Amino acid sequence: MNTTTIIPIGIIHTPFKELDNMPIQPAGARDVIGEIEVFEEFAEGLQDLDGFSHIHLLYHFHKNSGYKLKVTPFMDTVERGLFATRAPRRPNMIGLSVVRLESVRDNILRVRGIDVLDGTPLIDIKPYVAKFDAVPADSFGWLDENADKAETLKSDFRFVSK
Amino acid sequence: MNTTTIIPIGIIHTPFKELDNMPIQPAGARDVIGEIEVFEEFAEGLQDLDGFSHIHLLYHFHKNSGYKLKVTPFMDTVERGLFATRAPRRPNMIGLSVVRLESVRDNILRVRGIDVLDGTPLIDIKPYVAKFDAVPADSFGWLDENADKAETLKSDFRFVSK
Repeated sequence: MNTTTIIPIGIIHTPFKELDNMPIQPAGARDVIGEIEVFEEFAEGLQDLDGFSHIHLLYHFHKNSGYKLKVTPFMDTVERGLFATRAPRRPNMIGLSVVRLESVRDNILRVRGIDVLDGTPLIDIKPYVAKFDAVPADSFGWLDENADKAETLKSDFRFVSK
Repeated sequence: MNTTTIIPIGIIHTPFKELDNMPIQPAGARDVIGEIEVFEEFAEGLQDLDGFSHIHLLYHFHKNSGYKLKVTPFMDTVERGLFATRAPRRPNMIGLSVVRLESVRDNILRVRGIDVLDGTPLIDIKPYVAKFDAVPADSFGWLDENADKAETLKSDFRFVSK
């Protein structure tokens, strides 16, 4: 079994200081501004990023541990398979959000529409490219009826480690 | 510095046996079929996934090591900041692709439009939800003029470890 070690390349700063009562997706945090602090040693890699309107953030759900393969998502009332959800407690605790990139200044990115806990370790930044990432998806399983809830629902403590 | 360990939750099977001459994005592999073998111990987490037309795959670029913060991407002729590219050699070697989910049978997912090397360790599956993931992106930096090349360009050995 090949394991690999993930290192933080920066820290995500947001207004969300606690895991409860947070937006559960960027759709519920459209106007929330955050700052991505990329560690100086990686800052050179940010060149050319300012031409992109949106970026993917990969980050470590560092406040979570353990997982179950069936979970009741924030947006639903029945159990779903974990991989059919975006729940944070997963075999690998990696989160993925698409945010709007407002500006890049040295090693600081200002972003809009961020649903991440303050202090979250950043793992990677990848440019959002419509040609690769905006696919003609047309069915969304249990979220067909529930995705709109992401605009108003907030998190609670159900995915927080005891 | 909080590091974290990533474990494989499955193996990605594709027609691509070598790192050179591969499609460089799903856009260049639209009709390529792959099979995602999720290890039995995680199979229960696949329930409800079959309702989604597209999924995100997170995987480990296991044939790559080391990285530079400035790279010349397959689709360009000049150096770009690493985080403004999807190049595989990164501080954390995690790849992200959106693929079409054709079917789920037990622990095997059949997917379409996959640009991943055969034998690649799978790290996570997340449902693709248009509301969260299909953003109104309108600028793509150096890729504005180059993204179309992903449909025809193939990889070479530039990102392979020596």
